[in-house]
Amino acid sequence: MKAVGVVVEYNPFHNGHHYHIKQSKKKTDADVVVAVMSGHFLQRGEPALVDKWHRARMALLSGVDIVIELPYAFATSKAEQFAKGAIQLLTAMKCETFAFGSEDGNIEPFNNTYSLLHDYRTEYEELIKYFVTKGNSYPKSLFEAYEQLKQKRPQLYIDLSQPNNILGYHYIEAVHKINSSIKPVTIQRIQAGFHDDISLDSTIASATGIRKALFEDGELKRINDYVPNTSFEQLIQWEKSHRQFVHWEAFWPLLRYTISRYLPKDLTQFADVSEGIEFALVKYAKVSNSFTEFMNHIKSKRYTWTRLQRMLTHIFTGVTKEQLHKFDSPTYIRLLGMTGIGQQYLGEKKKEFDLPLISRVAQTKDELLQIDLRTTEIYAQGIQLFSNKKIDGDFQTPPIRI
Amino acid sequence: MKAVGVVVEYNPFHNGHHYHIKQSKKKTDADVVVAVMSGHFLQRGEPALVDKWHRARMALLSGVDIVIELPYAFATSKAEQFAKGAIQLLTAMKCETFAFGSEDGNIEPFNNTYSLLHDYRTEYEELIKYFVTKGNSYPKSLFEAYEQLKQKRPQLYIDLSQPNNILGYHYIEAVHKINSSIKPVTIQRIQAGFHDDISLDSTIASATGIRKALFEDGELKRINDYVPNTSFEQLIQWEKSHRQFVHWEAFWPLLRYTISRYLPKDLTQFADVSEGIEFALVKYAKVSNSFTEFMNHIKSKRYTWTRLQRMLTHIFTGVTKEQLHKFDSPTYIRLLGMTGIGQQYLGEKKKEFDLPLISRVAQTKDELLQIDLRTTEIYAQGIQLFSNKKIDGDFQTPPIRI
Repeated sequence: MKAVGVVVEYNPFHNGHHYHIKQSKKKTDADVVVAVMSGHFLQRGEPALVDKWHRARMALLSGVDIVIELPYAFATSKAEQFAKGAIQLLTAMKCETFAFGSEDGNIEPFNNTYSLLHDYRTEYEELIKYFVTKGNSYPKSLFEAYEQLKQKRPQLYIDLSQPNNILGYHYIEAVHKINSSIKPVTIQRIQAGFHDDISLDSTIASATGIRKALFEDGELKRINDYVPNTSFEQLIQWEKSHRQFVHWEAFWPLLRYTISRYLPKDLTQFADVSEGIEFALVKYAKVSNSFTEFMNHIKSKRYTWTRLQRMLTHIFTGVTKEQLHKFDSPTYIRLLGMTGIGQQYLGEKKKEFDLPLISRVAQTKDELLQIDLRTTEIYAQGIQLFSNKKIDGDFQTPPIRI
Repeated sequence: MKAVGVVVEYNPFHNGHHYHIKQSKKKTDADVVVAVMSGHFLQRGEPALVDKWHRARMALLSGVDIVIELPYAFATSKAEQFAKGAIQLLTAMKCETFAFGSEDGNIEPFNNTYSLLHDYRTEYEELIKYFVTKGNSYPKSLFEAYEQLKQKRPQLYIDLSQPNNILGYHYIEAVHKINSSIKPVTIQRIQAGFHDDISLDSTIASATGIRKALFEDGELKRINDYVPNTSFEQLIQWEKSHRQFVHWEAFWPLLRYTISRYLPKDLTQFADVSEGIEFALVKYAKVSNSFTEFMNHIKSKRYTWTRLQRMLTHIFTGVTKEQLHKFDSPTYIRLLGMTGIGQQYLGEKKKEFDLPLISRVAQTKDELLQIDLRTTEIYAQGIQLFSNKKIDGDFQTPPIRI
């Protein structure tokens, strides 16, 4: 059996994801789709809309055969670490191919950019230094250096100012770095851009657009057209059980309390908290009665929204810099769910896997897994604050079978 | 003007406190009563029933003339540190006398016990060692050593197994240690013991008994007979504004979340957390849906209820061992409120005070004060969780004037 891997958040699963899966399978002629999915905290520094069990179920009901969890330490890190963890897991699971979405569906520019930056590494670094010394900001210097480097070898290259392209680049880089035999392909994304709102004349919207519609309109039926029916049912079920979808706003009393508990200097133990932002965090947590109010106080040119949210995620979960950055690679394959075909694949290939497959979680000494368990508990307590129900925990929940 | 000092928590202010103030003034012939009162977290490791402003107002309406705050680092510490901070503050405020409650109202046994343990210090320590080597527990060895030492000099001594006597002993010890000119006197307590329930045929009940009645019966009027009317009005006002009185149970979602955020080993940065209790804390926080359930899980012969609550207080407020234990003495006199007579006393004596008098709080570099401000903020957020109203903060609130 041949497997194609995808790297996902499914927050929530929507028609665009469904399309990507179908195309990935077709393009790679795979029998099985393996999704590496983030758990309860996502790469943009946000808690997931619904828990990982509901999101895994959505995926399994719409074409994914196996869902495994990308550990927190990778799922909430910068693109480079995120991509590396995901590619390592797919490689460990013996996926032959790996498919990611891109604007034009052509893998060549990705490969070209990787080779260029790899072959001219020293020159690239010197160019960056040169532009920095000339007084440019670091991002601006990166851009200029890249522009200049491209002249050396005229080919098709990717635009590195696009978030999706940066992630794609890091996938390719990870494949090379870990010497993976996995073959990357890219599937052209249809219609919706990364941050687009949902529109009336389409059934495709970005997850960001869908979340926006959900929170602004507050009505689930508003997004019915943009997600598969099976996903919609999962969302209905969640809303029935837990009253509302998860958003930073709902966790604000806990996050605010946590920030207020620290002396500013002690907040620098968390990833990305430095350069004085710790003083603003403590100062404005006290006076802000909502997450939005807080973010409006602390945002500035210096810090992107994502960077701020990511540092808040780590403060919220209590995962320190030291804990977050100690892992070079995943140490396990955490199975969240599978279809019949997925189960068949696992039966056939499990013995060849490079990492242990964990179906049921028990007390563990694995520090990477401990973080996952801890962050599930924190997410669950956050939900209990507004809903009377606790979500299923890691210890009690067996892998979903569809 | 002559001032007598008292050390109090007023949680809440009741008829026994009222009696104590009247007697103290009478016995010492003082013009002014100065109360050093704990802020929002108390010596038994509990959050105060109502905020410090309401408690200060109760005191000022019932005979106290000046209320100053015992800083958190002293108010939530063991008896020795608690007593020392309080005596230092009263001494700094030039109180001539200091009055504490005791069972028989006789200061001699306190002085005798202090002199005995001071004069025979080496022998005492050797006796303790001896009893420990013979296989006795440490508290048992302390008791046996004291019993034996008493034979050396037959006099009236206090019973050191009584919590109130231990506190009284430490007051006397503090007076000697800091070489204070303050003169300690003791007032006989009437009726209610330390932990007694409230009874039908009396108007005196302990604060513990009153709190118990309040939480078990849930009806404020149940305690009407045991507190002055002016105090009762403050309690009614609080209940109207904040729906309920403060109890660990109300803070449980925050406390639980905080414990769950830590790896067990990282909890040992808080005072008293050691010897493996950190594992029990993390383990049982996850499975306990109430504070009571949690305490029932973690309590054992090894840890007294008070010791457990005190460690939970520090975890809750985020005050580490290092922060808590760095202060040898208070660095300021924080004025919470005063009567006209109190104001007159301050006007007359302020210049002689050994510490700066703080009436209005501003941003500060004083680390002891920073802790007080932080713990008020945490207490306020805990209250906001169940009440929509925030309590008055340290920055916005001027001293109460009656």
